[in-house]
This record gives sequence, structure tokens and C-alpha cells, in this order.
Amino acid sequence: MNLTKQKLSIFALGGVGEIGKNMYVVQYADDMVVIDCGSKFPDEEFPGVDLIVPDISYLIENRDKVRGVIITHGHEDHIGGLPHILKQLNMPVYTGRLTMGLIEGKLKEAGLLGSTERILIHEDSEVQLGTIKASFFKTNHSIPNSLGIVLHTPEGVVVHTGDFKFDHTPVNDQYADLHRMAEIGKNGLLALLSESTNVERPGYTPSEKSVGVNLVEAFRKARQRVIVSTFASNVHRLQQVIEAAAASNRKLATIGRSMVNMISIASELGYLNLPDGMLIEPGDVNKYPPEQVAILCTGSQGETMSALSRLARSNHRQVEILPGDTVIISANPIPGNERRIGRVVDELFRLGADVIYGPGSQTGMHVSGHASQEELKLMLGLMQPKYFIPIHGEYRMQIRHRKLAETMGVEKDNIFLVDIGEVVEIEGGAARKAGKVKSGNTLIDGLGVGDVGNIVLRERKQLSEDGVMIVVVTVGKQAGAILSGPDIISRGFVYIRESEGLLDEATRVVAATINRLMQDNVNEWAALKSGVKENLGRFLYEKTKRKPMILPIIMEV
Amino acid sequence: MNLTKQKLSIFALGGVGEIGKNMYVVQYADDMVVIDCGSKFPDEEFPGVDLIVPDISYLIENRDKVRGVIITHGHEDHIGGLPHILKQLNMPVYTGRLTMGLIEGKLKEAGLLGSTERILIHEDSEVQLGTIKASFFKTNHSIPNSLGIVLHTPEGVVVHTGDFKFDHTPVNDQYADLHRMAEIGKNGLLALLSESTNVERPGYTPSEKSVGVNLVEAFRKARQRVIVSTFASNVHRLQQVIEAAAASNRKLATIGRSMVNMISIASELGYLNLPDGMLIEPGDVNKYPPEQVAILCTGSQGETMSALSRLARSNHRQVEILPGDTVIISANPIPGNERRIGRVVDELFRLGADVIYGPGSQTGMHVSGHASQEELKLMLGLMQPKYFIPIHGEYRMQIRHRKLAETMGVEKDNIFLVDIGEVVEIEGGAARKAGKVKSGNTLIDGLGVGDVGNIVLRERKQLSEDGVMIVVVTVGKQAGAILSGPDIISRGFVYIRESEGLLDEATRVVAATINRLMQDNVNEWAALKSGVKENLGRFLYEKTKRKPMILPIIMEV
Repeated sequence: MNLTKQKLSIFALGGVGEIGKNMYVVQYADDMVVIDCGSKFPDEEFPGVDLIVPDISYLIENRDKVRGVIITHGHEDHIGGLPHILKQLNMPVYTGRLTMGLIEGKLKEAGLLGSTERILIHEDSEVQLGTIKASFFKTNHSIPNSLGIVLHTPEGVVVHTGDFKFDHTPVNDQYADLHRMAEIGKNGLLALLSESTNVERPGYTPSEKSVGVNLVEAFRKARQRVIVSTFASNVHRLQQVIEAAAASNRKLATIGRSMVNMISIASELGYLNLPDGMLIEPGDVNKYPPEQVAILCTGSQGETMSALSRLARSNHRQVEILPGDTVIISANPIPGNERRIGRVVDELFRLGADVIYGPGSQTGMHVSGHASQEELKLMLGLMQPKYFIPIHGEYRMQIRHRKLAETMGVEKDNIFLVDIGEVVEIEGGAARKAGKVKSGNTLIDGLGVGDVGNIVLRERKQLSEDGVMIVVVTVGKQAGAILSGPDIISRGFVYIRESEGLLDEATRVVAATINRLMQDNVNEWAALKSGVKENLGRFLYEKTKRKPMILPIIMEV
Repeated sequence: MNLTKQKLSIFALGGVGEIGKNMYVVQYADDMVVIDCGSKFPDEEFPGVDLIVPDISYLIENRDKVRGVIITHGHEDHIGGLPHILKQLNMPVYTGRLTMGLIEGKLKEAGLLGSTERILIHEDSEVQLGTIKASFFKTNHSIPNSLGIVLHTPEGVVVHTGDFKFDHTPVNDQYADLHRMAEIGKNGLLALLSESTNVERPGYTPSEKSVGVNLVEAFRKARQRVIVSTFASNVHRLQQVIEAAAASNRKLATIGRSMVNMISIASELGYLNLPDGMLIEPGDVNKYPPEQVAILCTGSQGETMSALSRLARSNHRQVEILPGDTVIISANPIPGNERRIGRVVDELFRLGADVIYGPGSQTGMHVSGHASQEELKLMLGLMQPKYFIPIHGEYRMQIRHRKLAETMGVEKDNIFLVDIGEVVEIEGGAARKAGKVKSGNTLIDGLGVGDVGNIVLRERKQLSEDGVMIVVVTVGKQAGAILSGPDIISRGFVYIRESEGLLDEATRVVAATINRLMQDNVNEWAALKSGVKENLGRFLYEKTKRKPMILPIIMEV
């Protein structure tokens, strides 16, 4: 599909109909501006897959038109795809200082630092990208340096909010720029793309500072060590843990690669205020009395190999949980992770720790970084767009966000719910849906990018259900007779030692099938194989009601 | 382990350290009374497994001592194991009328109805089981006919609450028997086993009737059809849906095997009040105007093959969702199911339905059947036990329940947190932990009971991660040379058509390995195989960073 000239086109390559791998494109004539380049962790639908990034076929086909990618903030669902995408398509990266610091770490690892043009911007920058001029506005989110994006195009102004909440008492005193948002709205906004993460939640998201108070109190009460697990990417939370440690005279050790990394980058760039001499090595934790120690670690989602999980299983090299320690899980469980987190909490309790866990609304140890309904309305009220495209959410959230906008007077016909790849075209002030560009998931598994697709995934799922049974037989080229075998090997099907009888019978079924077919002069391998598959499959299903993958292999000598 | 005579022993074969497959045993001298016999659905740790039931080795070893099993109520986590367990160990089943009706359906299917002794009881029954006398008390729960159990033993009285809440305005006007509970406490209770499902929730669980009001209102408002999805086992909810349908002059169709089944059994036994002529066949739904139709269906957890999922995917034979229909999910998402439910909700929205979904606390369309903290305290306050064993919950819930009991004056040393199989022994009024009986998971996969264990599960997990690569080669017995192959077959590893180069190279690695080993006179198959595994594994990992399961097969002619 080729988007015609002198029109404004807006579409998502990721981030709508899903949570994760955000990537949006605004195109005017021959100029394309990309916003964000995220990744997403695969769920159980993608067994064995490491990471999912957007399919950027459309950008590659139009590589001469891509003016660059602007990154709103430094979270994985906005920057995690960069190393993979930049390998396929080199483009300049525009973003703020902290975000750039985090991106540079990734590019360095991927060997892309030298080849990637990087342009630092801040809230007052203006950047000309072909016919499109970009400016920015400060927002509040759980990581500092989060920006909203304003794209001034010949057709009108388009705003992308990035991720945001309205926190009127932000931890770093960096207030959202209400004035600039009001000004944008006042001057007439053509289209607003606003995030929908928390659109299902009524009311306001509380200020991040409300968590700080509770952390200080919990640190003060704890008679021994305090271990706090949170997302490394929640820099404001890290700051508040540091402050709670300072207030209770504790040294701080950090565990988990991403935590160590974030603390180093964010404090180096001045986004984290870490008192001199507070940080200690995990190996030195036992040199201090327990009431003078705090530990900040990854693993709030119960990830198997994370710091907290290793502590819970007592297999961290340097630190162990002792009876009387206080563990605070300072994060909400992401849907789907509850059972895994529950197991970690159980293990911590078994070690004698006191664990503060559960939804932040109950524990007071977590608030979201995303706007709830009233804040989403505030954004709409400030911006007063002509057209509205809810983004950054599952389809049901886009629907809810549309309803919200309707209650504020945005006309239903002016609200576009888009699928991935679906283009909203605006010309002469009139918007309409205009087809779809190629888009989808690019799966990353090990070193492979895109070599795992639906067929491979279907095979993995089948293998995980009932395992595999391999049947090998060697036949003579002339003789038309079995020379060796059939041998049967199974994995993931039954416990072999206790199922010898079944496997012996299966071998006989296969031998009989092959002999009968060969007597009937059926000698094509394909026919022999499908005969074996069918008869053995039927036999196994009758005996076990299971359907292992059957792989007949016929060797000819 | 043999539990000595003239002592009281209490242990769980399932239901502690987990939610699901409840099974508890109270033994005095040579008399064992079993309570409940549940099943549990496997999570992602058990790929391909259909169902998990308790390992009852200990009961089988002591089969002459088992006096029978008492079932508290008709939910799967209390009755689902019966067909499998009764096949291993025939014992009399004692339970109430509705519960027995549901059990009989299961036994019939399993061909066990004739061989199983079934004794109907009610809240005023008394049953002598050897030296142990059982009596009962009515409780409130989301299914009628729920009972608490009182076991009078020579050592003292033991109470098992079953699942309960305190609903002072129950849908069926069957009030929990507060007087009997008070009497039990007043007369001196030795040990209380109380369920812990909702111990993490502060306050009171609202009355089931609060949902009824909202259902009636939603049915009244809906301009077209109303589809309600809930657990078939939530009989009170079904009653309220029926009443809402009646109040809005709607006919009712039911979809989903368990829903049809429950409505038939519960109404036949008088536990469900269904107006004459209200029920219609799903195939007749289109014969009525949409505002006169309601549909009750399974699938509130987004189960792939359930009625609601089929409706959402538009592949139900008789009913389709039309734009303007109202779908109500009248259940809370069970942790782990959120994403699956979300996908179903998205699909329903895409069909143009209005969907009421999310936690019952927000929608008003669901309340729990389990006691929250204040109700758990009320139970403890009525019963005032000397010893307390929190059951029916994960370890962290047992911990929380212990804390609750401590706040009510139960001594910490008198509260026992037990793992599965762990025995609490009471003799001469003194309780202590006394070892462990054999216990665990029995996995059911197809017709197999117990033939899938850790090895098979590990294989399935490995297969689902990176697939399998099979290497076959035929060698001559004398020649010591490759006669045919090596042939390589892979599944779930890479997309084969696009990876021919890689597979060709892999074939060469295998051939070189075998030739070199045979030149060195290594002719044992085991050595050849491990050589192939090692070299091919290293090669593939270098090229792909993946570790498929490698299965070398050497055929000899």
C-alpha cells in the first residue's frame, strides 16, 4: 500500500489491540515520523519465544521516507525493540537525556552505537523532520524524562501523549506542563493519540509520593533488614526507596542486573539522587547489623531467574533471607503473573520473612504510572482534539476510552478505533479509515529474528501437550522388506519404564502396517508414512486418549 | 508411617499449600474418616495434563481402616477426584442430596455407580464411623446444600468448616446455623479446620443478593438479548439470573454442557426454582424478539472450548452474538485467566456487543462465595477452638489466617500450619506435629492415571521451548560405515523451508562426527549417540542460541 501524497496518515505498527511493543507512525506526503519502538514479552501463545517486536516491513519498503524515530520515554515497551529494528532499518533516534542513556546501553550491547545517529532533545526542543515539525511537552510517568509529542504538519497538529498520569506532587518536582497542553488545545488540535492503559479504572491514580510515606513507615518499623522488590524502570520508586533507607539510617545494596544498571545510569545522569556512601556491595551486607541494611532488587513479577526468586529459593550467592526480615513487593501483579508471584511469596514466608504483598491499593506500596479515567478526561479536556485515536491498550480499552471521550463531547464519528496497521487518513480536515499497511509480530528466539512463525509455534504447542513418538524403520531398496526396526522412541508421552507393554504393542502395530502395505505393493514412502501415522495414532488414542506427534522415518539401504 | 493407636491424627492429602483438590483425613485409632475428594486444574507447570487429584497411597495402604468419605459440597475442588479415587479405593460416600446428585452423574459416567455405597445425609443427621461420630451444620456458600462437619472423637471434637461465607440474606433462605456453631464452641472444641480462600480480603463478603439487584437492573435496561456467563456450579447465581429473566419477561436458553447438566439436576432435586415454560432450546432463540431472550452460558474464565468463547468466535452452531446484545460476565477472573478472558471480551466487543466485565467489586455482577476476614473471625469467635489448623489455601493464606486467629486470642503454639501429608497428632489434649504420610499429585492425562510424572513433564517443557531435532543414520554391522543418512528431521525448532542451509550444515556436522568416531573404532551406540548430541548441540547453539531436544537414532543392518 502506498499512502498518497499531500495527505496526513496515522497508523500503529504496535500498541493497539495489545499492551506492549508500541510503535506509531505519522506520515505527511513523503515524510514519515516514527514514535517509539517497543518490545513485548510473549505469553503462553508463543512457547519458547524470547521477545516480540513490531513487523516493520512497511517502513523498510519506504526507507527513504523515514525521517527518524522519536522515543517518548525509557520503558521496554517503548525502547525494547530498538536494537532489533535498527538492525533492519537505520534511522536517527530523537529522545531525552535519561531515555537516551538507557537506549545507548542497549545499542552498545548490540554493536549499533557507532552506526546510529542520536539526537538529544528536551521539552523545549523543536525538530524539523521533513515537512513535519516536532515539539514536546513534559508529562508525569513512573520514569523521569517522559515526553508528549506534538507534530505540526501542513494538515494540522497531531499530539501523541506518550505514557502519562497527572501527579501534582511528583517525586522529582518535574511537573507536567499543563500550560503547554492547554495552549495546544486552545490553538486547535487536529488529532490526539492518548494512552489507554488504565481506562478501566475509575477516579484518579494517586501520587507516587503516597507510596513514599508508606515506605518510610515500613522501613522505620522493620526490626531487621528490609528487601524491596520493584521494577528497575520505576526510577521514582527507586528514589523513594533510597529516601526511606536514608531516613532509617540504612545502607543500600542492589541485586539484579537491570537494577544495578538503572541505578548507575540514572544517578550518573542526575535523575537519581543517591547519598554518598549509602551504596554497599551485596557481598558486604552481612558486615552491617540487620537494622542498618536495605536491599533493592528485581523480581516483583516472580520471574524465575530474577533476584527475588533466587533469594526466595535461597540460592543467591551473597545474600540470604533471614527470619524476621521484611520483604516489600512494591509493584502490582501484572495479570498472568499472580501464580508465579504467589509461589515466591510462599517461599519467602517459609524462610520466616514478613512479606508485604498484593495490590498496591491494599498495601499502599504501589501506585500506577498511568492515568485513570479522570486524568484521561483531563487530558481530553486540555487538548480538545477534533479527532481522537485511543492507543496503548487492548481493544476493550480502546472501546472504553472512546466511551470516555464521547461523554466529553467528542463526536463518535470522529473517534477511530484502529487495529494494528490500519491507517487513518486526514485530508482537507476530513478523516477516514484508509486501508491497512503490512504489520504484525516479529518473533525473536535466540539469534533468530522472524524464523519462528505459526507452524513452528503450533508444533511446539502440540509437542508440549502429548509429546512426540518417533518410529524408525530401515527397508531394503529391492527386497521390499523391513531390514531393521521398527524402533520406537518417545519423549514427553508416557513414562517409558512403566509403559513397556504399550510401546511393544505399538511396535507390532507399526510392523504389521508396513508389512501389509508392502505386500500390497505400496512402496511410496509418503503412503507408508501416512499409513503408519494413521494406524499408530488410532492405536495410541484408543489406549491412552492422547495424541502425541507421530514422526515416521523410513530409511532405505 | 503408621499412626499409633488411641491418638487423634489430622492431615491433608490435598488443599493446603494450594487452592484445589481438597482432601482431609481425621483418624482415631483404627478409624479413618476422609473429608472431600477434590480435583484441581493443572497450570503451566503441568503441560498436557488434564487433571490433578490427590495421591492416596496412604489410604490404600490402610484400606481396612477407611470408614468412608464425607463430602461437604458439590464443587469440583471437593468432588472432582471421586471417580479417579474410588477406582483405586472403594469407600462409602456420605453427603447431602444436591451434592449426591452431582456426584452420581460423575460416578455413572465412570461406571462406578453400582459399586459405590452412597449414604444421604442432611444437617441433622448423625453418622457413626467406627469410634468417630459425625454430625453436621448448615453453612452459606455459592452452592446450596453446603455443610460443615463435626467429628466427635474419643479425644475431643474436631470441626471442618467446608467452604463458607456468612450470608445473612441467602438466596434460598437457608441460613447458616449460627446456633449450632455457637453450641459447638460453647461445649468446647478441640480443633478447628477452617478454610482460608479469602483471608487476604479485609471486611465482609457481600450477600449474594446484592448481585441479584444489579442483574435485574441490567436485564431491564438491555434493549436486546442478555447473555450471562457464570460458573454452572454457582447455583445461587443461576437462580438469580432466572429471576432477572422472569422479571424482564425473557425466555431462557442455556449453553454449555455443565450448565445444562447443573440446571437439570438442581431443578429436578428442588434446589433451583425454574418457572414453567421459561426454558427454551438454543436453536429456538431466533424465534423470539431479542428483548424477550436471555442466555445463560459457561465460559466465564475464557476457557477456549467453552460456550462463551465459541460465541465470541462466532462458531456456535445455533446462537450468534448480534450488535446491541448485552454480555455480562458474572464471575471474577481467577488469577492466571485474565489474559484469556480479555481476549474473549475483545472479541465480543468486536461483534458489537456491550460487555460488562471485570472484578465484581467494580461491576456489581459478582460476589465471592468465601468468607472475608471479618467472617473468618466470626467463625473463630463462634467456635473458639483450642487448636486451629487453617486449610484450603496457599501457604501465604495459611500464614494470614494464623495471624487473624492470633488477633482473636488463639495461642500461636496452638496453630498448626501444615504442608500436604503433614500429621498433627493430638493425645491427652496435647497436639504436636508428628511426621508425614505419603502424599502428592496424581496426574491424569487422557486415560493415564499416574503415568505422567516429572520426567515426562520436563520433556514436554523442553519440547515446547525449542522443539526437537531427530537424527537418523543406518550403519552396517560389519562395515562400520554409514549406509544411509544421516537424515535430520526437526519440529518446533525453525521454519524448515527457510532454514535449509542450517539443516544441511547440521547434517554435515553429524556425518563428520560419526565418521570420525567410527574411524577411531568407537562403535558402541551410546558413545556414538552422545558424540552426535554433543557436537550437534554445540553447533546449533552457536548458530541459533537455541537448545532443541536432540534425539540421535542409529539403525543397524
